[in-house]
Amino acid sequence: MTATRTIDWDHDTVAIIDQTLLPDEERVLRLREVGELAEAIRSMRIRGAPALGVAGALGIALAVARAHEQGEDFHLAADRGALELASTRPTAANLRWGIDRAMDAIRAGPEAVVHAATTIREDDVQTNRRMADRGATWLQSLERGRDIRLRILTHCNTGALACVEIGTALGVIQAAHGRGLVDQVLATETRPALQGSRLTAWELQRLRIPFRIVVDSAAPSLIAAGAVDVVVVGADRIAANDDVANKVGTYPLALAARASEVPFVVVAPESTRDPRVATGKEIPIEQRGEDEVLGFAGSRIAPTGTRALNPAFDVTPRELITAIITESRVIEPSLIDA
Amino acid sequence: MTATRTIDWDHDTVAIIDQTLLPDEERVLRLREVGELAEAIRSMRIRGAPALGVAGALGIALAVARAHEQGEDFHLAADRGALELASTRPTAANLRWGIDRAMDAIRAGPEAVVHAATTIREDDVQTNRRMADRGATWLQSLERGRDIRLRILTHCNTGALACVEIGTALGVIQAAHGRGLVDQVLATETRPALQGSRLTAWELQRLRIPFRIVVDSAAPSLIAAGAVDVVVVGADRIAANDDVANKVGTYPLALAARASEVPFVVVAPESTRDPRVATGKEIPIEQRGEDEVLGFAGSRIAPTGTRALNPAFDVTPRELITAIITESRVIEPSLIDA
Repeated sequence: MTATRTIDWDHDTVAIIDQTLLPDEERVLRLREVGELAEAIRSMRIRGAPALGVAGALGIALAVARAHEQGEDFHLAADRGALELASTRPTAANLRWGIDRAMDAIRAGPEAVVHAATTIREDDVQTNRRMADRGATWLQSLERGRDIRLRILTHCNTGALACVEIGTALGVIQAAHGRGLVDQVLATETRPALQGSRLTAWELQRLRIPFRIVVDSAAPSLIAAGAVDVVVVGADRIAANDDVANKVGTYPLALAARASEVPFVVVAPESTRDPRVATGKEIPIEQRGEDEVLGFAGSRIAPTGTRALNPAFDVTPRELITAIITESRVIEPSLIDA
Repeated sequence: MTATRTIDWDHDTVAIIDQTLLPDEERVLRLREVGELAEAIRSMRIRGAPALGVAGALGIALAVARAHEQGEDFHLAADRGALELASTRPTAANLRWGIDRAMDAIRAGPEAVVHAATTIREDDVQTNRRMADRGATWLQSLERGRDIRLRILTHCNTGALACVEIGTALGVIQAAHGRGLVDQVLATETRPALQGSRLTAWELQRLRIPFRIVVDSAAPSLIAAGAVDVVVVGADRIAANDDVANKVGTYPLALAARASEVPFVVVAPESTRDPRVATGKEIPIEQRGEDEVLGFAGSRIAPTGTRALNPAFDVTPRELITAIITESRVIEPSLIDA
C-alpha cells in the first residue's frame, strides 16, 4: 500500500483516497462536512465494508466537530449526520455499525466521539491482521492435503483499499502468499464499477502476487474446468443464520463452487454480522443508478432510451458457504443444521 | 430490422453490417477477399452462430469467385479459404458446417458454390421462423399453466443480427411477444464485447419489446429472487450428448435456473450440433485477446502490465438444460438418461 491510508482523520477532517480515480490517479480528498462524506460514500469514492464502518464513525465525528466549532447543538448535528450517512449504502452493515459506535460515545462529549471513531480505525488494522492469519491457516489446511500451491478466485475489492490496511479476503490472500501458499489469483473485473480490474489489480500488482483478471461471468466455468482451488470473498452483511450479502456476482461463484466441490470462503469482521436480520431474504439490496450499467467512463454503451436494473449486492445462502472467517472464529455454515 | 440483412451476397462480394460499430453507427462493409471476411469474423464485425454458418459458406464463395476471375485454381483457393475461415472462431460449429456445405458443392463448379452459399442464407430465414414458432409454442405451455405473462432472461445477442433474419433465442422471444406472452425481457450486457447492451438492446428497442439490461453477474440473483420465469439462450456448439457451448456466462445462468427450478431453454438450428464431439468436455473453447477484458469501450481500465484470461464460451452440461429447440424438434436433455 501507499503511505496514505484509505481513510484517515486529519486535523478535524476526513482524508480519503478517491477510489473512483484509481488506478490512473491517487488523489486524496479532504472532507470537512458530513454531506461531503455522504456524497463520497454514495458515489463510491470510499467503499469496502470495513472502510465504511470507519467512514460511518468518522462521519459522526465530522458532524460533531463542525457543530462544536460553530457553537451549535452537536447532539442534533450527530443525529442528522447519522440519518444522512446511513441512507447512503443501505446494504452495508459495517456502515451502520460504525455510526452506532460513534453515537454511543456522544454522551461523553465531542472529543469522545472523535476518540471512538479513531479507535475503530485503529482496531480495524488489528482485526484484519487476525483475520488474515486465521484465514491463511485455514487455506494452509487445504493446501497440505493436496501438496499444491493454491489458485484462488476472488471477487470485487477486499484489500487495503476496502479497509484501513491489509483487507479482508485479499488480506487472507496476502498472508497466504507470505507463507508461500499461492500459485495465482484469479480476480473478477466486477461490473459495473470494475473494482476488480481497477482496485484489486492495483493492489495485487503492488503486493507482487501473480494474478489474472477475468470477466465476472467467466469465473463459474473456470471453476468447473478445474482452474480454481478455493474461492475467497468478503461480505457486506451477514444475517443471523449465516446467509451472506456481498457484491453482486458472489452468488453465482458460490453456486459454481458447490457444483464442483470447491471450498467457498467468506472473510469478514464480526461487525459485518447483523443479528437483527434473521436470514438473507430480509437484507435490503441497494439498487444503484442505471447509468453505471449503461455506460462507462462517460461514454454510453446501450442505445438511448435503454433502461437497466442495477442491484449492487446479492445473497449467498448459508448452505453454499464452506467457511466464514472472522477476527475471532471460523464458522462452517454448510455443516451446521439451520 | 433494417432493410439491410446482417450478411448478404451482393455483386460477387459479401456485404455485412459492422456489428462492432452498433448501436452508434450502421455501416455496411463490402468484402471482396476471403482474408477480409476472416478478419471481420475474428474481430466480431460479423458474429452469431447462424450468421457464421452463412459467413463460412459465403467465404468459400468469395475465394472461388476471386480465383475464377483471375483464372486461378479455384479448388486450391477454396481449400486455403476453408483453412483460414475455420481457424477464426474455433468453438463455432455453424461456421465449420457452412464451410463444409460450400466445399461439398465445389465439384459442380464455381457457380454451384455461390448457389450453395446463398441457399444456406435463404434456408436460415426459414429455419429461424420454424424455431421461433416452435419455441413460442413451448413458452406458451409454460405461461398457460400459470396465467401470467413471462419475464424472460436472455444472454448475449441471438437476434436477427446473429442470423440472417429473425434470430434464434431472440426469434423465439419475438414470436412469443407477437402472441402476447411476454411481460418483459431481462438482457445481460454480456462482457467483454457487450453484445447484450449494444446489439440485443438495439434489436429489442426496434421490436418494441419492454426490456432491462443487467450486468451478467446480477442475473443469477435475479433468478433466485423470483424475477425470471424462463431463461432462453442460443448455442455455438452442441455435443452429441446435448452438452451446450454458448457465450461465456451461460453456465452460471443455467446453475441459477436449476437452483430456483426455472426452465432453461436453448434455441439453436440443427447445424449447431456437432456429432463428432461426444460431450462438452471435448469442445474447444476459444481464448480471445486480453485487451477485450482489460479495456472497456476503447479505454483501458486495469493498471498497465495487468494480464487477463478471456475464454469466449462456456459449457452447460445437459442435466441443467430443460429444452433444446431446433427447427425440427424439441429435445429435453435433463429428462433423458445419458
